[in-house]
Amino acid sequence: MTDERTISIGKLELASGVRLRGVEQRVTVYGKPAADGSNVVLVEHALTGSSRAHEWWPGIVGSGALFDPKRWCIIAINALGSCYGSTCPASRITVRDIVRAEQRALTQLGIDRIRFVIGGSLGGMRALQWAIDAPERVQTSFVVGAHDHHSALGIALNSLQRDALALDPQRGLRLARKIAMLTYKSDELLTSRHGRRPDRLGRPLFDVEGYLEHQADLFEGRMDAASYAALTHAMDSFDVRSFDIPATKPELIFVGITSDWLFRAQDVRAAARRFELRGFPSRYVQLASSHGHDAFLAEPEVLRVLLEPYLRDATHAAAVAR
Amino acid sequence: MTDERTISIGKLELASGVRLRGVEQRVTVYGKPAADGSNVVLVEHALTGSSRAHEWWPGIVGSGALFDPKRWCIIAINALGSCYGSTCPASRITVRDIVRAEQRALTQLGIDRIRFVIGGSLGGMRALQWAIDAPERVQTSFVVGAHDHHSALGIALNSLQRDALALDPQRGLRLARKIAMLTYKSDELLTSRHGRRPDRLGRPLFDVEGYLEHQADLFEGRMDAASYAALTHAMDSFDVRSFDIPATKPELIFVGITSDWLFRAQDVRAAARRFELRGFPSRYVQLASSHGHDAFLAEPEVLRVLLEPYLRDATHAAAVAR
Repeated sequence: MTDERTISIGKLELASGVRLRGVEQRVTVYGKPAADGSNVVLVEHALTGSSRAHEWWPGIVGSGALFDPKRWCIIAINALGSCYGSTCPASRITVRDIVRAEQRALTQLGIDRIRFVIGGSLGGMRALQWAIDAPERVQTSFVVGAHDHHSALGIALNSLQRDALALDPQRGLRLARKIAMLTYKSDELLTSRHGRRPDRLGRPLFDVEGYLEHQADLFEGRMDAASYAALTHAMDSFDVRSFDIPATKPELIFVGITSDWLFRAQDVRAAARRFELRGFPSRYVQLASSHGHDAFLAEPEVLRVLLEPYLRDATHAAAVAR
Repeated sequence: MTDERTISIGKLELASGVRLRGVEQRVTVYGKPAADGSNVVLVEHALTGSSRAHEWWPGIVGSGALFDPKRWCIIAINALGSCYGSTCPASRITVRDIVRAEQRALTQLGIDRIRFVIGGSLGGMRALQWAIDAPERVQTSFVVGAHDHHSALGIALNSLQRDALALDPQRGLRLARKIAMLTYKSDELLTSRHGRRPDRLGRPLFDVEGYLEHQADLFEGRMDAASYAALTHAMDSFDVRSFDIPATKPELIFVGITSDWLFRAQDVRAAARRFELRGFPSRYVQLASSHGHDAFLAEPEVLRVLLEPYLRDATHAAAVAR
């Protein structure tokens, strides 16, 4: 039921003008596409994810999840620039480049139309870029914990993480992950989970420091410094507040997370409104969570409840069309 | 009118049990103490400040400022652990240790009573510790952008900064400062000042990255990695939510900054309430600013307006007493 493969898409011209050769896209396909392609879901990972969406997004992808391979054909693609099987070029890439490579991969898979594109954080940027760049291929994009441009604070935080890598690729990657983890969590969560308690392993640390060490341990060896730099630069470059408005306008569902301080709910709401003003069927829904930015990963059941109505509508529309 | 000196306070036993010898305190005195000592103000610096309070707190200390040396005798002491003339021990210190050293320095200066202690951030912690540890010497403490314990987020952010120092004392100090600067500013401020604009010097950076580079340049050479580690550890250790309540209870004025996400206004307000419940004359006032934590330094005129009523009361009380 799960099919993993690497697709060679050949040459790719980046937005910068740089031409890449022999570009590869690592793709995981769960389930089978319907003859009319009406059940295709594209799942877009965030900064450190892979095409194995069931591993990092249980509750959303998998048996019994929001998108169950029995009903849906779920396709996840490792982003250009990442280190989970896709090409990581030496030159700077943008979210548009990432999506362009994905479009080519899907075409080679024989997939023309996508019912839903869904992603959080960088994945949300990718989902939105798909709706802008390939509006005739996408019916609905779920943009979760992301909006239409990376903020000054977001850029600054990514920049600090790259500074850490520049100090020491290996230990710097640990520090970058620790910085990132803090931006993914809320003050409330850290206080309730760790507070001022001492380290649970008895080291001369506070519990929250031990937690960050543990996160760095888990991260070490699973991410590459060059990929980390490439994808954070891609995030920094993201700004789709101005573009040529397409005739076909996919439906956009923006999901803001109440306790997210990296991609603030108010900014997600404002982006939804900007797309509505351009004529897109654009809605804003709010995920109430005290977790912080990571709520879309940590509380998928809450996200699921928010998104299920849109899937029911899709099933209903498909039934009517038949 | 300004008198700078280094005071040797001799031996000092730390809260950890470690005994220091030959401890020095760098002190700056502005103006003259009144015969009855009723005009003495102790100004407590934050993480990277010095005893030269007029340099880093114009509008609060200096001619024409909230505390003018013509009227007040202003004393500022470089904290134990800092690198601006006071001793920086190799062992871990606490805010209580810092204040204990200050008490000894003031005693040697012949200063017994203090009308106001004022400080922001770590300086606010010091001002609060003074009220708890030497309640018979302090009449009023102004605790600005600080409260009664360092939060899990605050500890975590300090820990990351020390991680940066551990990677490279020199370049790591630059990164630590950049991390710290972000925690001192608000999302709103960064967006309005920098947004997504390119670097003003034409480097391949965003403006906010150029700003952080500039802040790191300004910082380099003016702070020592050992002092940075010592004082952030002292902040992390700070928790005065439980202590023996003294019979004499100084007045406490807590100032929360609306856009501060490092020391949140709601947490400052909660601390003020906790001290009120213990019987302290404790008040909470709010500094409305979009600047973030650094508003107490960046917008001293707003802070001044908030605090002036308490100084008028003091002047009035002194006149009545005469």
